[in-house]
Amino acid sequence: MTQLRLDPDTARHALSGLRPIEDDAAAVAAYAAGVWSCLVEPGDSAAGALVAQHGAAEALRIALAAAGSRDPDKALQRWAPRMVAADISAAFERAARQGVRLVTPRDPEWPGRLADLGDHAPLCLWVRSGAGETDPVPLGAAAPAVAVVGARAATGYGEAVATELSAALAGLGVTVVSGAAYGIDGAAHRAALLAGGSTTAVLAGGVERSYPAGHAAMLDRIAATGAVVSEVPCGSAPTKWRFLQRNRIIAAIADATVVVEAGWRSGSLNTASHAATLGRPLGVVPGPVTNAASAGCHRLLREGYARCVTSVDEVLELIGLHRESPGRGDDDAARPRTDDLTRVGDALSPRSWRTVDDIARRSGLAVADVEARLGVMLLGGSVDSDGRGWRLAPR
Amino acid sequence: MTQLRLDPDTARHALSGLRPIEDDAAAVAAYAAGVWSCLVEPGDSAAGALVAQHGAAEALRIALAAAGSRDPDKALQRWAPRMVAADISAAFERAARQGVRLVTPRDPEWPGRLADLGDHAPLCLWVRSGAGETDPVPLGAAAPAVAVVGARAATGYGEAVATELSAALAGLGVTVVSGAAYGIDGAAHRAALLAGGSTTAVLAGGVERSYPAGHAAMLDRIAATGAVVSEVPCGSAPTKWRFLQRNRIIAAIADATVVVEAGWRSGSLNTASHAATLGRPLGVVPGPVTNAASAGCHRLLREGYARCVTSVDEVLELIGLHRESPGRGDDDAARPRTDDLTRVGDALSPRSWRTVDDIARRSGLAVADVEARLGVMLLGGSVDSDGRGWRLAPR
Repeated sequence: MTQLRLDPDTARHALSGLRPIEDDAAAVAAYAAGVWSCLVEPGDSAAGALVAQHGAAEALRIALAAAGSRDPDKALQRWAPRMVAADISAAFERAARQGVRLVTPRDPEWPGRLADLGDHAPLCLWVRSGAGETDPVPLGAAAPAVAVVGARAATGYGEAVATELSAALAGLGVTVVSGAAYGIDGAAHRAALLAGGSTTAVLAGGVERSYPAGHAAMLDRIAATGAVVSEVPCGSAPTKWRFLQRNRIIAAIADATVVVEAGWRSGSLNTASHAATLGRPLGVVPGPVTNAASAGCHRLLREGYARCVTSVDEVLELIGLHRESPGRGDDDAARPRTDDLTRVGDALSPRSWRTVDDIARRSGLAVADVEARLGVMLLGGSVDSDGRGWRLAPR
Repeated sequence: MTQLRLDPDTARHALSGLRPIEDDAAAVAAYAAGVWSCLVEPGDSAAGALVAQHGAAEALRIALAAAGSRDPDKALQRWAPRMVAADISAAFERAARQGVRLVTPRDPEWPGRLADLGDHAPLCLWVRSGAGETDPVPLGAAAPAVAVVGARAATGYGEAVATELSAALAGLGVTVVSGAAYGIDGAAHRAALLAGGSTTAVLAGGVERSYPAGHAAMLDRIAATGAVVSEVPCGSAPTKWRFLQRNRIIAAIADATVVVEAGWRSGSLNTASHAATLGRPLGVVPGPVTNAASAGCHRLLREGYARCVTSVDEVLELIGLHRESPGRGDDDAARPRTDDLTRVGDALSPRSWRTVDDIARRSGLAVADVEARLGVMLLGGSVDSDGRGWRLAPR
């Protein structure tokens, strides 16, 4: 078994085609970050802490030494079974062949929001975007991003809402993040693509394999103008564990998460849970209570984890962006109307002239109060007087 | 103009057919309460405060004296225009002819919850129930009650949900309170009637006139087994003001209010506002965001005034009643799964036997950890071993 090596030549060779050539230290660090992604399962906080303390390269040297020396530290032992040079080379080579880039936390395009995951943050991202290293589409770390996720078993209602929200968000320059699954995820990505906007798919397995297979064409289109990303290297299968951990990246890479439809035990509740844990704004779209596909959304509302969102404006509010919202007007309807003007108005007719005494009796107000209110209404043009009586003015 | 009199004979005469005969003081007090309802517009807190301080009879004597003496106190002047003995007699006589009862805050059947309205509480209720005074159906002050209200312009979805909730509540002995309007209100009353339960309609005008007219037969059925109530006397028109004030009674007479469908400016938001002001539990049923009939419900959710309710069990929770809820199971789906068992499970095949080393490499766990997890899984019956390798056990 070939020894895993960590020198500039090995690094430059492995990174060829994966990212621009750097100085020796940067190449070794980037290579080490990629190697780490081959050794750990997603969310490995022991690796995260070690890399945070020592940097990817030095941390990897420590792990390699420990594996060789039969160090009794269990946290260091767990990576030993995967320290197989040939497997790691194969992952890098497969990525290069598929036009996949390696992006590390030191790169300007790294999404800074991922730092909120702390030691659970991914150690690198494998990225399919644009035409690979030669014409990459940067991840766009600065642009606002909203995750739109939901049930695979979505209804027509849910897909329509996901489509409408995502198209509007994408049209406003907001990156739509999702997980490329059937149902809501697919509707969200497709709408963003159709709107000519930016969309990011986060996969649980390697980015070179389209999962689900039925979304291969869609993933190609996402890669062409947006990005398909994963923290696991090419050749990795999308296991249950990786799906659950993938969800933390969706939640962390976006400024807010919106769940459009989710059954009572939907995986998108896991994404919602990550968003809530990270303190990111979480919106859910309500739906018919007669529809099990919205039961998880209503549950999040009931339990107070999420805010009810029903329009793109309400989604924008989640991330602190505001658009002028036309039409909905003032808030009077929600408040009890307690003014005497209503009572005087009730006591008036549009046809008959009525005396102040009559209006006072009908409205249950004192004569002086009625006269005062009629004066206000006359100024506003809502009543007419013939000198002796009063009636409602024609509209 | 006949002077308005307040003596035992007048009281007994006026109350004849409206309620059982009482001693002189009680008769005068009950009569005075009924007279007050003829003088004030609903929610008149000046009258409420005066009656709270002096009792209905003495308060009325004070108001009569002030009206006669040209007292400069405006609050006392406002009732003068309606102190017309003939009009008041006519209201009492009309009630007696129609089998309407007069219920006052001193009566055992008075809904004690109305006291939460303070000086805005109704001074009496005019009640159509059973066969009038001879065979009344008491208001049932002690039974739990839930208001089910919503849009007149309801959708099939909203009416279906109102029907389902109300039938279930009525079947469990909960009185369904509503406003007898078309749409949600009507669906709620009808479902309670069909379920053989108790239902109360609170009207904005006199209870002897069916409003809306198309609900005359339904109101007759409600009166036969439940109650049709109003704080305004017979002969009173349902004005806008009275509708808005009627809503405070619906909110106050029920232990909780549920809004099933409400447009952006629906009157049922006014009922919801009263419930919130009273500190009563307020539930709203979500609906499709594509449906304007749920916009008001979603607004209440967004603004944090209301709790999302999707089932009768969740409505029962609002009033502190709990039923065993079958089926929904535990809460695992909402939490990230972080245990190594998942990772070991992912690394196993149902077909191939795999070595511990292989499983360690696939799962990214140390060999010792894998062995420990496999031991647990073997005890649980989820894996098999042939002595050299491991695989997933058949289900």
